[in-house]
Amino acid sequence: MAKRSIPDIVIGRLPVYLRALSFLVAEGRQITSSQELGDRLGISSAQIRKDLSHFGEFGKQGTGYEINFLHDQLRQILKVDRMWEVALVGAGNLGKAIADYAGFAGKGFVITSIFDTDGTKIGTRMGIENVAVMDVSALGQTIRDREISVGIIATPAEHAQGVARTMVDAGIRAILNYAPITITVPSNVRVQYIDPVVGLQRMTYYL
Amino acid sequence: MAKRSIPDIVIGRLPVYLRALSFLVAEGRQITSSQELGDRLGISSAQIRKDLSHFGEFGKQGTGYEINFLHDQLRQILKVDRMWEVALVGAGNLGKAIADYAGFAGKGFVITSIFDTDGTKIGTRMGIENVAVMDVSALGQTIRDREISVGIIATPAEHAQGVARTMVDAGIRAILNYAPITITVPSNVRVQYIDPVVGLQRMTYYL
Repeated sequence: MAKRSIPDIVIGRLPVYLRALSFLVAEGRQITSSQELGDRLGISSAQIRKDLSHFGEFGKQGTGYEINFLHDQLRQILKVDRMWEVALVGAGNLGKAIADYAGFAGKGFVITSIFDTDGTKIGTRMGIENVAVMDVSALGQTIRDREISVGIIATPAEHAQGVARTMVDAGIRAILNYAPITITVPSNVRVQYIDPVVGLQRMTYYL
Repeated sequence: MAKRSIPDIVIGRLPVYLRALSFLVAEGRQITSSQELGDRLGISSAQIRKDLSHFGEFGKQGTGYEINFLHDQLRQILKVDRMWEVALVGAGNLGKAIADYAGFAGKGFVITSIFDTDGTKIGTRMGIENVAVMDVSALGQTIRDREISVGIIATPAEHAQGVARTMVDAGIRAILNYAPITITVPSNVRVQYIDPVVGLQRMTYYL
């Protein structure tokens, strides 16, 4: 598959489609349509058909998409039909909430190490995996030893860039950043931001 | 301005542009280009020019965009040149982290009421505004009394739909949902999801 030919923006929508399909699977549904998916997601059915056509023929004209099949295909395309170990830095309220997040289950990710600088937190256990918080000085070595590719930053803004540098130096190639600051990474590393302001500002236009 | 003519997907990118412009403002920069913005955001410069052209002429051929002007214009378009009161439901680790989030400052939002069902939390003060947590039974009346339009849900999944219903019945028209579940609202209400899984799955494709 010629990866370079598929725009980032298309890849960016696949997890949203996968999320909608997961809900349809949970509802026990068998068949859906680009129209139904579009109505649920606020995306045009033409856009959905066009996006999916990059990866082959998933639906039949007039009969729609087989939900389980499309769900499995998208999981394979996004490489979340396996389990990625995630290193989480920041064990404050936000870090705790992320470690406890029920939504990771079955979606391809498991937080297997948690780091903080706060001596009162180090050694305490938290999250769904009941992981003992480690000193952030062990971050690089842990990433290398466990060959971790995915990191989450849930630190205050002023520590985010330093943490990102340690992550990248140790081999992490995908960072989810909750800190309210843009981080700089080499071009072979991906960063996604979780920013409630962007979510809120997407809605005020319509108020 | 004919609002209907501007696709949701374009509106959805404006907060991302605004965020990048805010960083440029903070850096003391005066002029930028669609090329520079595109490089920072991983979006093509042509896309940025096309998106902004929906709202008028912001840049001059060859001289680029005046950062402060474009920043102010986008704030007006997105209606975040004012302060929106936000009602937050859920005062657990996630709710506390949201209430403490430093990134809301100057971005158009202030959390002025916080609700929970847990009696041990009610009455305690939290967040940047040092707000006393209220019983969730006061949610509807508070929204009506203060004419609040924006809500954030940070409850467990099983409570999210009920909270959304109370919010909508009381007049909220924009909901940011952190609970790992899709909520159903009338078509005149906007919902945005904060889902770390979507952010992570946007990156694994490239690993």
